Amino acid sequence: MRSTAAGAAHEETAAKEKLLNAATDLFTRRGYSATSVREIVAAAGVTKPVLYYHFGSKEGIYRAIMDLTQEAFNVRLEKVRRRGGPAGKKLQRLLEEVFDLFLERLSVVRLIFAIYYGPHQGAPDFDFNQFDEAFRKSVLEIVREGVKSGEFRKGRAEDMALVVMGTFSVATELELSHAGRGIGRNGLARLLRLVLNGIAYQGGKVRAQ
Amino acid sequence: MRSTAAGAAHEETAAKEKLLNAATDLFTRRGYSATSVREIVAAAGVTKPVLYYHFGSKEGIYRAIMDLTQEAFNVRLEKVRRRGGPAGKKLQRLLEEVFDLFLERLSVVRLIFAIYYGPHQGAPDFDFNQFDEAFRKSVLEIVREGVKSGEFRKGRAEDMALVVMGTFSVATELELSHAGRGIGRNGLARLLRLVLNGIAYQGGKVRAQ
Repeated sequence: MRSTAAGAAHEETAAKEKLLNAATDLFTRRGYSATSVREIVAAAGVTKPVLYYHFGSKEGIYRAIMDLTQEAFNVRLEKVRRRGGPAGKKLQRLLEEVFDLFLERLSVVRLIFAIYYGPHQGAPDFDFNQFDEAFRKSVLEIVREGVKSGEFRKGRAEDMALVVMGTFSVATELELSHAGRGIGRNGLARLLRLVLNGIAYQGGKVRAQ
Repeated sequence: MRSTAAGAAHEETAAKEKLLNAATDLFTRRGYSATSVREIVAAAGVTKPVLYYHFGSKEGIYRAIMDLTQEAFNVRLEKVRRRGGPAGKKLQRLLEEVFDLFLERLSVVRLIFAIYYGPHQGAPDFDFNQFDEAFRKSVLEIVREGVKSGEFRKGRAEDMALVVMGTFSVATELELSHAGRGIGRNGLARLLRLVLNGIAYQGGKVRAQ
């Protein structure tokens, strides 16, 4: 049987989740400045004091959405970094981890795109480039390992990191913009293999990855 | 010496250009619905009747921006399609043509992203996916030629088209979001070569593209 304290804690977490989801959705569809605290709490089915208790303000809930996502993102990158294995395999794991997070938080990704690319709407400053930067660094680190070990060609590691990021970018773009036409995790792994092996006919057998 | 008629035609074209540029900029920064005809003509330095004469309405100028861009886009795709040559070279030409247009119309690209990803702002419907679709088709056509001729591997042409689009996507994203950190036309060509040849060490010499 669940104790009263555990039950209350559970309810608090549920309310927090509902508020985060409602705010993410409203900020994306209506814009940050056009969304009021009243609308957020109504959509979440809680009272205003619950929002103020957990997040302090509209700005607070916005920051919480971004901070939590960034934290989850860094956890995934770190998870891959700590494991060994050949560079090609590590790249695949990295892309898959980030892709999974992308799908889990698709609504937050939509919000980030709306703020980043949309008209100015008075949202608190947040440096979205740090996502990209952290991702690029992680990819680059693995590519450099691959070049060093001889698994990858000698060449510009920065360029290699960019084409790997490009495969991620095209796979996520399909999920984001063409609902139902996404290629999923397996498709992404296929694209990565293609990028590693090359499109051009190489005369011999394809190296197994 | 320029005739009066030619001079008038020249002035008309100049006014049209100014209006298109001013509207593109205002729609992007302030949003479509928040921008008034009054603001557009003020920014362009012309009178209201000039806007109504050329475009009919705010909606008309928005549609003109998109239609002109789509037209220019299709012209570039067609230009590459009509020329021959090996598939790798044709892909390079295609990416470069579209990349050049992208840079020339960066402000329109920003507007498209703001409308596509931003909060709903009442802009007239426009099917932005047709850009992507036309691009994908052109890339896919060339990839299929390459597979058929033996220049490319046997394999899923759709996947190959996606990784080529991914290199384009990552190169344009750098121009769009990281001013000054773009890799330019030459960088894009380098990424394409890398995608064609593969990142993995293939044991032999790299095929010349």
